[in-house]
Amino acid sequence: MTTIATGTRTSDVMNAVRGRIAGRMLGPGDRLPSIRNFAATMGVSPSTVVEAYDRLAAEGLIRAQQGSGFYVSGTALPPLKLADAENPKSRAVDPFWVSRQSLDADDTTLKPGCGWLPADWMPNDALRRAIRSLARSDDALLAYYGSTRGSPALRRLLLGRLAENGIPAGPDNLVLTTTGTQALDLICRFLLRPGDTVLVDDPCYFNFQAMLKAHQVKVVGVARTHNGPDIAAFEAILSAHRPRLYVTNSTIHNPTGSTLSPQVAHRMLNAAAANDTIIVEDDIFADFEPEPSTRLAALDGLERVIRIGSFSKTLSAAVRCGYIAARPDWVEGLIDLQIATNFGGPSPLASEIITHMLAGGGYRKHMEDVRRKLVRVRRETAERLSRLGIEPWLMPRGGIYLWCRLPEGLDSAEVAQTALAQGVVLAPGNVFSVSQSAGNFMRFNVALMLEPRIYTVLADVMKRPVSSASPA
Amino acid sequence: MTTIATGTRTSDVMNAVRGRIAGRMLGPGDRLPSIRNFAATMGVSPSTVVEAYDRLAAEGLIRAQQGSGFYVSGTALPPLKLADAENPKSRAVDPFWVSRQSLDADDTTLKPGCGWLPADWMPNDALRRAIRSLARSDDALLAYYGSTRGSPALRRLLLGRLAENGIPAGPDNLVLTTTGTQALDLICRFLLRPGDTVLVDDPCYFNFQAMLKAHQVKVVGVARTHNGPDIAAFEAILSAHRPRLYVTNSTIHNPTGSTLSPQVAHRMLNAAAANDTIIVEDDIFADFEPEPSTRLAALDGLERVIRIGSFSKTLSAAVRCGYIAARPDWVEGLIDLQIATNFGGPSPLASEIITHMLAGGGYRKHMEDVRRKLVRVRRETAERLSRLGIEPWLMPRGGIYLWCRLPEGLDSAEVAQTALAQGVVLAPGNVFSVSQSAGNFMRFNVALMLEPRIYTVLADVMKRPVSSASPA
Repeated sequence: MTTIATGTRTSDVMNAVRGRIAGRMLGPGDRLPSIRNFAATMGVSPSTVVEAYDRLAAEGLIRAQQGSGFYVSGTALPPLKLADAENPKSRAVDPFWVSRQSLDADDTTLKPGCGWLPADWMPNDALRRAIRSLARSDDALLAYYGSTRGSPALRRLLLGRLAENGIPAGPDNLVLTTTGTQALDLICRFLLRPGDTVLVDDPCYFNFQAMLKAHQVKVVGVARTHNGPDIAAFEAILSAHRPRLYVTNSTIHNPTGSTLSPQVAHRMLNAAAANDTIIVEDDIFADFEPEPSTRLAALDGLERVIRIGSFSKTLSAAVRCGYIAARPDWVEGLIDLQIATNFGGPSPLASEIITHMLAGGGYRKHMEDVRRKLVRVRRETAERLSRLGIEPWLMPRGGIYLWCRLPEGLDSAEVAQTALAQGVVLAPGNVFSVSQSAGNFMRFNVALMLEPRIYTVLADVMKRPVSSASPA
Repeated sequence: MTTIATGTRTSDVMNAVRGRIAGRMLGPGDRLPSIRNFAATMGVSPSTVVEAYDRLAAEGLIRAQQGSGFYVSGTALPPLKLADAENPKSRAVDPFWVSRQSLDADDTTLKPGCGWLPADWMPNDALRRAIRSLARSDDALLAYYGSTRGSPALRRLLLGRLAENGIPAGPDNLVLTTTGTQALDLICRFLLRPGDTVLVDDPCYFNFQAMLKAHQVKVVGVARTHNGPDIAAFEAILSAHRPRLYVTNSTIHNPTGSTLSPQVAHRMLNAAAANDTIIVEDDIFADFEPEPSTRLAALDGLERVIRIGSFSKTLSAAVRCGYIAARPDWVEGLIDLQIATNFGGPSPLASEIITHMLAGGGYRKHMEDVRRKLVRVRRETAERLSRLGIEPWLMPRGGIYLWCRLPEGLDSAEVAQTALAQGVVLAPGNVFSVSQSAGNFMRFNVALMLEPRIYTVLADVMKRPVSSASPA
């Protein structure tokens, strides 16, 4: 509004001042440049600067002091606000919408929009055995903080698994983290500064966007194809924007289910090297693959690729533990950062439980069962959705998601809000899309699509004309 | 060096450019102001700007482009470095030193510098019962992420405990966090921006400094007296610096063991209100008090005071869980931030274990035992240290620490480094001190001071002349 009313030059000056305050070039109590000097700097007339200062003073950002000029106000910035709405009930369909709705839903709500397997698919008997075994641990394990890198036994198992995937990691390359999400968060804190540019896939896991917003970085998207990012666009964006980081899932990408081809992977690494971009490969769905595909971390040998993962999708989302495999000097810095911000890593109890489950021998069998069941429900879900005119963008080779196009003219955010009123949490396309170009898409968790009521609700909400598609 | 060689005006110009790059007013590839314009802005001659630009180009920060001016180089900033040394073995005695040495020490190392009770003081039987009970939980608890605020049962128990302490909190005031440390970290991320000023006690818990460094804020210290911060200094600092946050322990302060008096608390809150400073009250040692003392959160009613805590000191440091009690609108923002950075809060398994232990009835008895034992070992430790000329600054009314002055002329960092070579981890004064004025102090954990070898090593390392007091 101000911009329209006051003309470009005045708002240029206002933005320059706002920028200097936001960038901490000017702090509370600091005197602004004199009218005359700033007019010269900006190449505008002194009266334009007077108008800009007056308007900023009216906004409260600066204040005039009789006879001595303008000063930055002492008022602190408001708290960091990430989401679009304060009240979770009425909140907008932003990247927090699916998280909040699915984490806090009651037992009667159906959640095909969520990102985890149903409890009865999980290895609960093995988990109970691991917990009972934990109760017999010695006092030291039960009483003390863990070591700064985390459980040696679990790290040993992970190094073996990394080696199986062709990733040459030693003890210095690995640190356990509280969660997989926190693994990425630590990396962002370690490598990014406010104002940096970060590249993500478009679409990508919605929480990447929420997290990057918390880091106050500029987020750029690259279109995801069936074989990874659109490689020509990827190369062009890297040379144009030189992003500090690219965050991705190489295999069974969330939400599309697509997997990197070797050719695309090779070109990606060359472009990253040429532009000094670091790649974070979140390999959380790795064990859902029928057979291993190309890993950036394997090709690159953990030079500029950082690999992260967790056990939330395969063992339990309640036992929280993640890991980072990276260059040893970065791992040292990440360990310090995890001490500073969390006084260490995961609960030693959590690491012990996961070690017990991974070492127990039943893990391979469990994942085979999960994969077999997923093949069946993926096919069934695709068929049932197809009858409603909802078509998968790709039939993925593994994983829990189907990324689907809705019938022409439907807005998936409206469909999701209407379905929520009927007790079904969906994951509408644009929460995944930096460019907001996925309004016609929806992500479905095929393991939670067996309930007939979901299809009834979908059919119902898709029939309504758009104008009546808001919740009562 | 550059500064000395080139005179003030050139280095002023260089610093102005560095500041604009650091503050993101100028990004990689951006053109610097023309020589003539910048000379006018800075009030220096064009030749000074030329010299400054040339020197910055030599440093690689900017580059000259033939006939078109100077541009910011594309090189990204180096990763955030928190600690003074990369190699943990040789690292300097900084705020990470005690954490790293005590978390990663082997079983033969004695750790009177650490901040936790020995395992055989902890309620391990109750913990084992809680774990066995956890193994009988239903599948949903064992398989799923928790809700965004954390376990309702644990929050109910915590609200009761807050009410006992006179803190009027409702369900909207509370969120569980992964750890107590992370509780503070979330608050810092929510409320602070790089360059803000934060006030801490001098001395204060060393990890507060490590964390605040990660937030890239300016840290100011206020001297701690026997009754809380030096209140006159506190008032003067608040009006001079208007810090955004003050982070403190009101009761059984770490490392001094001192406790806030009601008069000081009242004046602190008035000064905080007058200067718009928010106070974080880390109440982690609350249950070590013989009887409750003044709580800022109780006086203030959670308006501008945020209370945080955890169970690491009382139940187990291996079961990680913390909490934040604060204004409802801040709690909403903190929940979003915890989703973005950790996809939720503590492990539901951890919350379940803690709920079981707190609700079990044995907790009060356990803490009574701990307090009784601490009275005895505190007195014994003080006597034994006194024979070595080491005197407590204060005999605290509770808690695990004695903050002691070493005999005149001894540097506690050197003493700690020499003791480490003999297998004893100590906590030297300056890791707690923003002003680095506690070089003659040492913090002792009285629960870990029963081992005679500690006194032998102390006597030995204190006898050595300073010149030979570095590790072999």
